[in-house]
Amino acid sequence: MTEYLAIPVVLGVVGLVVAFVIYHVMTRHNHGEGQVKKIGDQIHLGAMVFMKREYRMLGLFALVLLICLYVSPLGFNTALSFLVGALASATAGFLGMFAATKANVRTAMAAHNHGAPLALTISFYGGSVMGLCVASLGLVGLGGLYWYFGGDPATAHAIHGFGMGASTVALFSRVGGGIFTKSADVGADLVGKLEAGIPEDDPRNPGVIADNVGDNVGDIAGMGSDIFESYCGAMIACIAIASTMQVAHSNELMFLPLALASLGLLASFAGIALVRLRCSSAPEAALRTGTIFAPVVFVIMAWVLIDNIGVGTHVWWSVLCGAVGGVLIGLITEYYTGSSPVRKIARSGETGAATVMITGLAVGMQSVVLPVLFLAAIIFISTHLSGLYGVGIAAVGMLSTVGITMAIDAYGPVADNAGGIAEMAGMGEETRKITDSLDEVGNTTAAIGKGFAIGAAALAALAIIAAFVETVQVHNPDFSLELSNPVVLVGMFIGGTIPFLIASITMTAVGDAAFDMINEIRRQFREIPGLLEGKAEPDTARCVDIATTAALRRMILPGSIAVAAPVLVGFGLGAASLGGMLGGALLGCVLMALMMANAGGAWDNAKKYIEKGNLGGKGSSTHAAAVVGDTVGDPFKDTSGPSMNILINVMAIVSLVIAPLL
Amino acid sequence: MTEYLAIPVVLGVVGLVVAFVIYHVMTRHNHGEGQVKKIGDQIHLGAMVFMKREYRMLGLFALVLLICLYVSPLGFNTALSFLVGALASATAGFLGMFAATKANVRTAMAAHNHGAPLALTISFYGGSVMGLCVASLGLVGLGGLYWYFGGDPATAHAIHGFGMGASTVALFSRVGGGIFTKSADVGADLVGKLEAGIPEDDPRNPGVIADNVGDNVGDIAGMGSDIFESYCGAMIACIAIASTMQVAHSNELMFLPLALASLGLLASFAGIALVRLRCSSAPEAALRTGTIFAPVVFVIMAWVLIDNIGVGTHVWWSVLCGAVGGVLIGLITEYYTGSSPVRKIARSGETGAATVMITGLAVGMQSVVLPVLFLAAIIFISTHLSGLYGVGIAAVGMLSTVGITMAIDAYGPVADNAGGIAEMAGMGEETRKITDSLDEVGNTTAAIGKGFAIGAAALAALAIIAAFVETVQVHNPDFSLELSNPVVLVGMFIGGTIPFLIASITMTAVGDAAFDMINEIRRQFREIPGLLEGKAEPDTARCVDIATTAALRRMILPGSIAVAAPVLVGFGLGAASLGGMLGGALLGCVLMALMMANAGGAWDNAKKYIEKGNLGGKGSSTHAAAVVGDTVGDPFKDTSGPSMNILINVMAIVSLVIAPLL
Repeated sequence: MTEYLAIPVVLGVVGLVVAFVIYHVMTRHNHGEGQVKKIGDQIHLGAMVFMKREYRMLGLFALVLLICLYVSPLGFNTALSFLVGALASATAGFLGMFAATKANVRTAMAAHNHGAPLALTISFYGGSVMGLCVASLGLVGLGGLYWYFGGDPATAHAIHGFGMGASTVALFSRVGGGIFTKSADVGADLVGKLEAGIPEDDPRNPGVIADNVGDNVGDIAGMGSDIFESYCGAMIACIAIASTMQVAHSNELMFLPLALASLGLLASFAGIALVRLRCSSAPEAALRTGTIFAPVVFVIMAWVLIDNIGVGTHVWWSVLCGAVGGVLIGLITEYYTGSSPVRKIARSGETGAATVMITGLAVGMQSVVLPVLFLAAIIFISTHLSGLYGVGIAAVGMLSTVGITMAIDAYGPVADNAGGIAEMAGMGEETRKITDSLDEVGNTTAAIGKGFAIGAAALAALAIIAAFVETVQVHNPDFSLELSNPVVLVGMFIGGTIPFLIASITMTAVGDAAFDMINEIRRQFREIPGLLEGKAEPDTARCVDIATTAALRRMILPGSIAVAAPVLVGFGLGAASLGGMLGGALLGCVLMALMMANAGGAWDNAKKYIEKGNLGGKGSSTHAAAVVGDTVGDPFKDTSGPSMNILINVMAIVSLVIAPLL
Repeated sequence: MTEYLAIPVVLGVVGLVVAFVIYHVMTRHNHGEGQVKKIGDQIHLGAMVFMKREYRMLGLFALVLLICLYVSPLGFNTALSFLVGALASATAGFLGMFAATKANVRTAMAAHNHGAPLALTISFYGGSVMGLCVASLGLVGLGGLYWYFGGDPATAHAIHGFGMGASTVALFSRVGGGIFTKSADVGADLVGKLEAGIPEDDPRNPGVIADNVGDNVGDIAGMGSDIFESYCGAMIACIAIASTMQVAHSNELMFLPLALASLGLLASFAGIALVRLRCSSAPEAALRTGTIFAPVVFVIMAWVLIDNIGVGTHVWWSVLCGAVGGVLIGLITEYYTGSSPVRKIARSGETGAATVMITGLAVGMQSVVLPVLFLAAIIFISTHLSGLYGVGIAAVGMLSTVGITMAIDAYGPVADNAGGIAEMAGMGEETRKITDSLDEVGNTTAAIGKGFAIGAAALAALAIIAAFVETVQVHNPDFSLELSNPVVLVGMFIGGTIPFLIASITMTAVGDAAFDMINEIRRQFREIPGLLEGKAEPDTARCVDIATTAALRRMILPGSIAVAAPVLVGFGLGAASLGGMLGGALLGCVLMALMMANAGGAWDNAKKYIEKGNLGGKGSSTHAAAVVGDTVGDPFKDTSGPSMNILINVMAIVSLVIAPLL
């Protein structure tokens, strides 16, 4: 009786169908004509160009890993899983971004012709396609492999390849997208606003299309892959831990994460429908309703399920722990990037850029404390209830409703893009006001989403590390990660340096890539006659091309370090050192991710707070100081910070995959 | 036959006598008259005022801890040791700073009247008093207690109180001194240079004496206490680990750290004499000779000793490992704060303050990698040779020649102060040139010294943590710090947040304290008629008072957190959690300390590089951008960064003290 194994796959397919229907409804709305349509098409095509070139490079890298896995003792099954994982992750990112780049122009048109409610509906539809693709492809891919392997503990190990495939794609998407978006942003702003003296999102600026493309490839495709790999990683870790457990219900425990994710998808359907129904009210209220309603529905359904299959209600408490913890961590992020800390940073701008930097860094450092303590509490409670399996299941609990979480998260950049299009196409003050109000809500949801993503990634990574330890112990029962063992300690120190190294490399990469962009935009202003007067067209495709080349070239090094480090330490210093390294890297990644994301978000909002007319408003010296903070915050929050989430997951899953060989 | 136990005490007394002789010779030089003498006296008195008020407050805090220890089951012996440790640390800081504030004015006069060689001699004498006081008081205090307790393993635990006393004093000196020095620096610069438009170190500026006082209380007294507690902590850890070892030579192993430190003091004598002999040559060469000669002499003597007492030459290799490792870590620090990374930061100033920040942070993050890998290598090799005892003995090897290391380190601020006095007293271009050349060498030695201090503190802390684990295991043989034990993991997460929290608090404290200073300086310029015209005297004592009050008030919170955290976690969550917390905090502290110290040093030198006339020189927009980096770097490298060293040592030693109660 293994027919139930098909349920996640079937539900995943249903999710994809729903996503397609939403896409179809969304694209039936007016996409404008003339200038509007042209800008929309340029952004869409630019994003497609980037994705194609990124995936081509990624394909090569993945092919090398695929061959390595195939010829290694891990063999065909792991290689197959790797391939499925990489394809699923790439497809989720691609489909979501495809829909988002269709939704942005339609959102702008709806804001122009019909007002806020329809604009909200369309941008949320755009985000929903992403959310549902992530959730559904995870179920189809991972559920399909689980079904194929028959849920047999003996072949369960092969499934880890899925996580490795997903994580590898995610790492490159996140890092490449992050470098692209910030180099385009910084380049367009520096030359356009400061040197040429034209406003933001002005169509005369050759870099402005690249900037809008960047929002899509970084904040949508990158974020999607990021969440996708945490989502799948958490499930894989639970399966792995359960497969080594000697308890009565180990088969049920192995299948439970897939079952929970299936329920989470159903809850996401309900959440998306509810937000849709409430789209005529204030956007913030509509989105918040969905954010709260879906997890509530999910934990109730989870209770019914867990109570029925008899694995013990203590497991349900771990699920609840994760679901509540995710919301709490998001709310702390909202506090640090949204209220009194932001005003404090803005005020510190009155004494110059240096104090903006000091205050912002201090806020960022302080902001790590509570989320990490919450994570510690989740770990403590969930393991107390259900052992290490509890950590994994808490992560699954946090991530199951990823369909709606990701939909709300991806809504923000769509609204942001719609604002950019409205500005470039000169749609007028009224339209801008509507898109701005949608964008503002999007900034809040993005902050919450980032905190959530970090928390989820940390729990997922920890669960994978636990699975790694269990797997090594199967082959070597004496294996332990005793901290006073020097080999473990040495690993921990090595692991701690990796997030600092990757953060340094990615931050430098943004600067270098922005430099290429600046030179190209300067060249166009210099060489294209009549461009500044608005009589000639900029070569926007060339800017997209420059940013693409720069980003792709610079994502290789950090990506390679992340994949190679566990292999080198594992085979060079042994499994104990590798375990220590994962511990040190996990700690470092979580701390740096929170610090960078929150400092960056707080700087961004401090600048916006001043731009609303506070403390002298735009053009004041306080504003100039805040702009410095915002510029430093850009790579913090959109490149280096988010890379940390995936970095630790890639290292953990690579370790899990090679565990049987150590 | 325990007469040999007296040797460290006797040698320590000899060291104090040598320090006194050097002090006597140094003070016989000309201290100038009129304006020069007045400025010198103001700095000296200002420093004394700060120290007195700091020690009064510290005394209260120490009294509370003393009573707690006395009434606790640890009892009289631990309380006595605590008192001796606190007194020794406070005395070392006080004497060293007393001498330094006598040496600065004499250095300026010597530069004015006799030229570079005598100026170098006097400033190095000033530093030597500090170096010898640190080394000697450590031997007298710790050696005396060891002698008093008769080297008996049963009472050995009481000696940990010495480390706790020294660390507590060090924490407050470092944090209080760090806040003082940077708030005075930032306050004096902002109002003086930017608002009133008068040059640096101008006698009309009311804050300029406070600024010079700050160099003494921060860079000399603070640094002295910092190194003192690492030095004693490393010895205490070795004694503790050896006392739990069941080997033939455990008595010899317990005494070995004190014996090595005694040899180190002898080697320091030789090094100081050699530098003195070479003072007529280039200052850099003279100091470098001493830096290399003393450790070489030390390791040779250590070989003879270890070979004779029969504890096995593998212990000597650990000593060598530490001695060489310390030098290497210092050299890496020199690279990151002195060569191509600095020029890269300076060049990034051409595109504004934001790129200076990004590049500097990236350099700082990258700079952690190699030193931490070296630390990992030292840990790996030394434990491979001699177990956990090896880590402690490597730390002792690194720190034994502290007499000369600290002398060279303290020389820098003395020369810096001499330059300030020469400027304030209008001693002319020629004198400034000499003091500037001495100061420049001092900046390099300071950078090396900082790297060394971090490395030494990390090893010492690790050794203390190892001693903590051993001590807990004596009472509870099953005790282990298994990383996959959730309790340990939760502790590790909590520990990781503490350096971020303390860094955030201390950075904010500098900003707040600087604000008080700015208001006072503004008030004086406004209310004292004729001040700006040079016709009236500023109230410099009031500025010292303001900075003192501000610093002392703001050192309480971070100090209390450091002492309370291990107690709360230890008694609340248990010894395993506390062990995990120490591991997480150690990793976080080392990474943050290196990142902040190196980024700060690199920003500082990037500014100086531009001021030498590169990239547009002073007054250019590139320079203005570099000044922003330098201002952010100030609390990084002189307040928050150095606090990390002591933070981890305080937490470790408090844990070791309470270990028998857990």
